[in-house]
Amino acid sequence: MSSGNETVGAQGYVPLPSRRMLPFKFTEEGLTTVKGIKVTSRHAGLKTQGRDLAVIYSESPASAAAVWTTNQVKAASLLVSIKHLERGKVQALVVNSGIANTCTGERGLKDAEEITRIAAEELGIPPESVLIFSTGYVGKYLPLEKIRGALKDIKYDLTASPAAGLEAAKAIMTTDTRPKMLSVKVPLKNGKEITLGAMAKGAGMICPNMATMLCFLATDLSIPNELLKRTLQRSVDKSFNMINVDGDMGASDAVVLLANGTEPLAESDLGLFQEALDTVCVSLAKMIVRDGEGASKLMEVKVQGAKTFQDAKMAALSVVKSNLVKCAIYGDDPNIGRIVLVLGASGINLEEKKLDVYLENIKMVENGVFVEFDRYQATQVMSRPEVRFVIDLNVGHEEATAWGCDLTPEYIRINSEYPT
Amino acid sequence: MSSGNETVGAQGYVPLPSRRMLPFKFTEEGLTTVKGIKVTSRHAGLKTQGRDLAVIYSESPASAAAVWTTNQVKAASLLVSIKHLERGKVQALVVNSGIANTCTGERGLKDAEEITRIAAEELGIPPESVLIFSTGYVGKYLPLEKIRGALKDIKYDLTASPAAGLEAAKAIMTTDTRPKMLSVKVPLKNGKEITLGAMAKGAGMICPNMATMLCFLATDLSIPNELLKRTLQRSVDKSFNMINVDGDMGASDAVVLLANGTEPLAESDLGLFQEALDTVCVSLAKMIVRDGEGASKLMEVKVQGAKTFQDAKMAALSVVKSNLVKCAIYGDDPNIGRIVLVLGASGINLEEKKLDVYLENIKMVENGVFVEFDRYQATQVMSRPEVRFVIDLNVGHEEATAWGCDLTPEYIRINSEYPT
Repeated sequence: MSSGNETVGAQGYVPLPSRRMLPFKFTEEGLTTVKGIKVTSRHAGLKTQGRDLAVIYSESPASAAAVWTTNQVKAASLLVSIKHLERGKVQALVVNSGIANTCTGERGLKDAEEITRIAAEELGIPPESVLIFSTGYVGKYLPLEKIRGALKDIKYDLTASPAAGLEAAKAIMTTDTRPKMLSVKVPLKNGKEITLGAMAKGAGMICPNMATMLCFLATDLSIPNELLKRTLQRSVDKSFNMINVDGDMGASDAVVLLANGTEPLAESDLGLFQEALDTVCVSLAKMIVRDGEGASKLMEVKVQGAKTFQDAKMAALSVVKSNLVKCAIYGDDPNIGRIVLVLGASGINLEEKKLDVYLENIKMVENGVFVEFDRYQATQVMSRPEVRFVIDLNVGHEEATAWGCDLTPEYIRINSEYPT
Repeated sequence: MSSGNETVGAQGYVPLPSRRMLPFKFTEEGLTTVKGIKVTSRHAGLKTQGRDLAVIYSESPASAAAVWTTNQVKAASLLVSIKHLERGKVQALVVNSGIANTCTGERGLKDAEEITRIAAEELGIPPESVLIFSTGYVGKYLPLEKIRGALKDIKYDLTASPAAGLEAAKAIMTTDTRPKMLSVKVPLKNGKEITLGAMAKGAGMICPNMATMLCFLATDLSIPNELLKRTLQRSVDKSFNMINVDGDMGASDAVVLLANGTEPLAESDLGLFQEALDTVCVSLAKMIVRDGEGASKLMEVKVQGAKTFQDAKMAALSVVKSNLVKCAIYGDDPNIGRIVLVLGASGINLEEKKLDVYLENIKMVENGVFVEFDRYQATQVMSRPEVRFVIDLNVGHEEATAWGCDLTPEYIRINSEYPT
């Protein structure tokens, strides 16, 4: 796994996935680097301590695109945001942690609507331009009066200071152990420079109870809605849709991208912008997996030589989802048999006699048969904080990469000891 | 969960799934109760200690049906057995534990063929009437000479003694902590009585490395091949295909049913025989889950009111497979939110507003909204060795039941510490 591009900072590893030089400048600051974006956060009392309510505000109404959870059970807050986004521009995001506002029926919907109304009034903007996101316990109602109190005079706190950005990123955390932020500066062909900033949370791909995955991105470009939607979906498919912590899926999962600038995205800069967005999304996705509940190690699985892209994706995801593979990662055990059997069970086009599997650069399986390898070296490689497998199906030319983490006793402790 | 019908014996719980009175007599003995079936076992040296090679022998050639793993990666031994079974009658099953003979290419196939040839010669029967099953490590070759030595004069050891049956059931174990056997006597309409006996192994639904699921059944009826196949498939669909330990799938999984009798199965007894076979398969399936790697508890999930049977099955299996639900079971935590979100993500026909969920007889969710419940009582129910959920989708009339186990630190210990 390439790590030459990694920097270790306040939030731990910030993995930058590039293997070639990208013309971007990265910072560990997040949304606050984007012109016209301000944030703040407060303690509303949904969590026993610490900030649990964040507001992200755009000085001008922004074009917005979003990707929502595909779970049929959706948080009431999410349903309200979906409705508001359809109406047009977005100017504020209200995010609470502690309570997911899920399985709360009509009352949950009313609560979410009311909170967007309160926030809109405080900020002096239309209620439909406010989106709301709730993450935390399922089956509990939001404490409306506490949130009303916390939103009081919120506009006076809004700031673009890096410290406020960090506090906001912390306020949306649930079982996360560290905040997740990133921004890049992208040089346009006309000599100008734009910014793409983001903050995210997630410590399970999901988690019905305690966690879920949220990512808020903003850029100071001007991008038409349709194009914004398409570029975001592409990046999400390569990043947040390719990670797994425990195979479960949340009811509040959302990725939102705001574009609030005046500089239009030129046709000739589209590829570069997509690449910047991919890079930010993949980096944040890897931060989420690395901070997966109980995780001690990151696993990267690249499948190549697949007949179809769907096969490559399904194969890679099947491997990172397997409990047995995850246990082997935890145990530094170069147990390639488990990977081969997961591939066999994954339903893809597979010719066992053509299958090659590598652990980093060590060939472990050739033409479907195990090869002799240096066990000491393989165990050493397995014991690194990042473990990378390359699987060559040798039946086509498609490829995909997925990321996951190990399964540890700490994961079980977090998810069995926490009282609902 | 009904437990009035349970008996506790040498192997621990023997769960009998009936809720109404069945006209069967159960014993904890296995295959050796079936007329004409003899068994023996030996230590061939594939495991460091204990017996690791079992032979099941039918005095007369038997009709045979089998259900094989759907994993595209199949053990070489399994491929040889599939070929032999196609040729006709079966008279002997050779089963080794310790090495799975999987990912062993051409040499693995030759080894398996050679072992069936050696066994056939020792037993004085045609090689094609011998099936071979191998379970254990992936990617290792079978030690042919050790197995040849262990098969020497094996026919003189064959016996129908219960003690030999128990030893054989132990010989096929891998990470299992106890042998799994069961037999029933079934009264036919003509006043005669037939026997159905079985032994099984499995401590994961699977397990690429150490375990897998095998079940060998025999009956002293005479049943034509096509009918035998159909009844077995039906029973397997309700039992072994409805259990999950860790979502992974083995390369050696097989369920085999021999019918070696002369008494033909009358049309009027078919329903009763199917029920007996269902009962034995479900009981053994539950024994496998209860003995799942690291498992401390059994979970039963019944889904009713589904639009299609496929929906009911998928929903039930999704719940027992969820790591988060499994952690909640381990932690005695009545965390119904996790179940609701798994259902939402399962891709079935779901109307959130119609969903009811029960923990035993406690209503937890009504019309998609959480209801108040007695937390002390719910936690007490969750702390029992068997936990049962009933999910009513209220959108149709189909139902299905699945079984799973909790996810425990011991599961991780078993699957991360064991050296490959």
